[in-house]
Amino acid sequence: MKISIDVMGGDNAPLSNIRGAVDFLSKHSNSNVEIIFVGDESRISIYESTFNSVIDRIEISHAPDFVSSDERSSRVFREKPESSLVKSVQLVKDGFADAVISAGNTGALLTSALFILGKIPGIHRPALAPFIPTQSGGFILCDAGANANVKPHHLVQFAIISQAYIEHLEGRESPKVGLLNIGLEKTKGNELSVAAYQLLEDQVENFTGNIEARYILDGIVDVIVCDGFTGNLILKSIEGLVKHTFTWLKQNIKAHPISRIGAPLLKPAFNDLKNTLDYEEHGGTSFLVINGIVIKAHGSSTSRGIKNSLIAAHKAYEEQLIKDITKRLEINSI
Amino acid sequence: MKISIDVMGGDNAPLSNIRGAVDFLSKHSNSNVEIIFVGDESRISIYESTFNSVIDRIEISHAPDFVSSDERSSRVFREKPESSLVKSVQLVKDGFADAVISAGNTGALLTSALFILGKIPGIHRPALAPFIPTQSGGFILCDAGANANVKPHHLVQFAIISQAYIEHLEGRESPKVGLLNIGLEKTKGNELSVAAYQLLEDQVENFTGNIEARYILDGIVDVIVCDGFTGNLILKSIEGLVKHTFTWLKQNIKAHPISRIGAPLLKPAFNDLKNTLDYEEHGGTSFLVINGIVIKAHGSSTSRGIKNSLIAAHKAYEEQLIKDITKRLEINSI
Repeated sequence: MKISIDVMGGDNAPLSNIRGAVDFLSKHSNSNVEIIFVGDESRISIYESTFNSVIDRIEISHAPDFVSSDERSSRVFREKPESSLVKSVQLVKDGFADAVISAGNTGALLTSALFILGKIPGIHRPALAPFIPTQSGGFILCDAGANANVKPHHLVQFAIISQAYIEHLEGRESPKVGLLNIGLEKTKGNELSVAAYQLLEDQVENFTGNIEARYILDGIVDVIVCDGFTGNLILKSIEGLVKHTFTWLKQNIKAHPISRIGAPLLKPAFNDLKNTLDYEEHGGTSFLVINGIVIKAHGSSTSRGIKNSLIAAHKAYEEQLIKDITKRLEINSI
Repeated sequence: MKISIDVMGGDNAPLSNIRGAVDFLSKHSNSNVEIIFVGDESRISIYESTFNSVIDRIEISHAPDFVSSDERSSRVFREKPESSLVKSVQLVKDGFADAVISAGNTGALLTSALFILGKIPGIHRPALAPFIPTQSGGFILCDAGANANVKPHHLVQFAIISQAYIEHLEGRESPKVGLLNIGLEKTKGNELSVAAYQLLEDQVENFTGNIEARYILDGIVDVIVCDGFTGNLILKSIEGLVKHTFTWLKQNIKAHPISRIGAPLLKPAFNDLKNTLDYEEHGGTSFLVINGIVIKAHGSSTSRGIKNSLIAAHKAYEEQLIKDITKRLEINSI
């Protein structure tokens, strides 16, 4: 298979992308994966010594233009066809690549993928479905921000596609689905959640009912569905709190001389916790509704995040994820 | 002033309530506050030795009945007039008390207060407005769960009453208000947040625009408004993550022998962090829309939480909080 990488995308581009690709290829020397670096050829060539060892499995596709992370246009795919982001998606459309990875502008990637590759047949709405790591294994949150306003039947589709994803990519059997809500009873919540409960109960296998925000990290379910407004807020508040907790703890350690002495001894434990909560460990967020494998790596991905995104793309391709999602949606067509 | 306490309410009742009252009275020996213990007289009298030192400032009001924490009826105020919860609210209505504190059933307290005391004139909707402590001072989140479905103009009122509250009770001048949203631009978000932005901009002093969930703990604003569905989810996800972080860290420390040695040295730093994130430090959640001072202490409050709730009630009374809110709503009447 061939995977195109938007080499210029992300806070640490292009080096993190190049290094991530090299790490992946070195560790998967027996696989048949080839990688296409999409970006400014002159900037990529600066790092040739970095990827020289795997150069026979790398191709460069020159893209002189660039989409910045704060670009807001929803028409980037039309306005910047020669950008590394848009071109790396176009390569999938044109059959030169089987999957695409970008750590660049999320909105631009989603709209470009939607316009160029289209939605999987039967899908009503786009969705963001990040894997949230926890000590008990982690779960998919869907939608985490693609749709601020959704209808109940969209949540049914979010559940079905997320189940397919976590089954294939994390190897979970019969994944459980919970509806994010402010109470356990069917009748709790806002208008959307009350209506969605009934539909999910009727149409989704292993729907286990409402899940309260307090318990989302407990490993009770494999998939949590909600509207994209709520999902984005939850995701971002968790990210914010994790960041704050470590900062505060560091400040507090500094304030206590005795703690300063103990701090180095606790480093292994802190590192374990950081690794648990680390989004990079799970290879980015799949745009599950796109008719093609499109993986959004976190904007601040290091080479490790890119490598894990490549692993996810490879698996999605090998396991024919898109085909399987299409089939499931046919069965559950609404 | 007189404050009635629902002595039987909360996970640690009645002792935590009694001890909290004693601590408050002992530390405020010069104030004119008297406390009414509302509850089963025979159970209260068991602890007489605990409150004997301040007995001249304590009154007991016998309430033989009890509202459990999982009771779901919204008609508790009618069905259980002789419960400690309902009776302690009734004492305010009847002029025997100036404020009420309960660590009991939140829903029952809110509906009882709404029915018995009514809303502040001009208020459209009830709201929960907890103070969320952070390293940079903390903020009020409103609504944190009273209304799953709200209209844009409700958010304006939530902003105004929360501003009054944080000005009086935390001594903040010109408190800033942010609208919880998934992006900074006016046009971001769901239908509610887009409509609310415009109203808040027109009608609320020191409205600083949208605030993203990632930054809510950064101390950028003093008040964050949102619908009660979202607010409840955010609040509970933060609570869940704080709990998990400490649990995970403990597990990870156990897994590393060297960390086990260092752990005791870090205790002061951990304790500081725990105290920062401690809801008990701030004396419960005010039901800001009720025409009377009603403070909901956390269900698992210890005596410290109750003491701080008493401090908050005392301050709200001294500073004539309800009167001030009424005046502000008149000016901003919509």
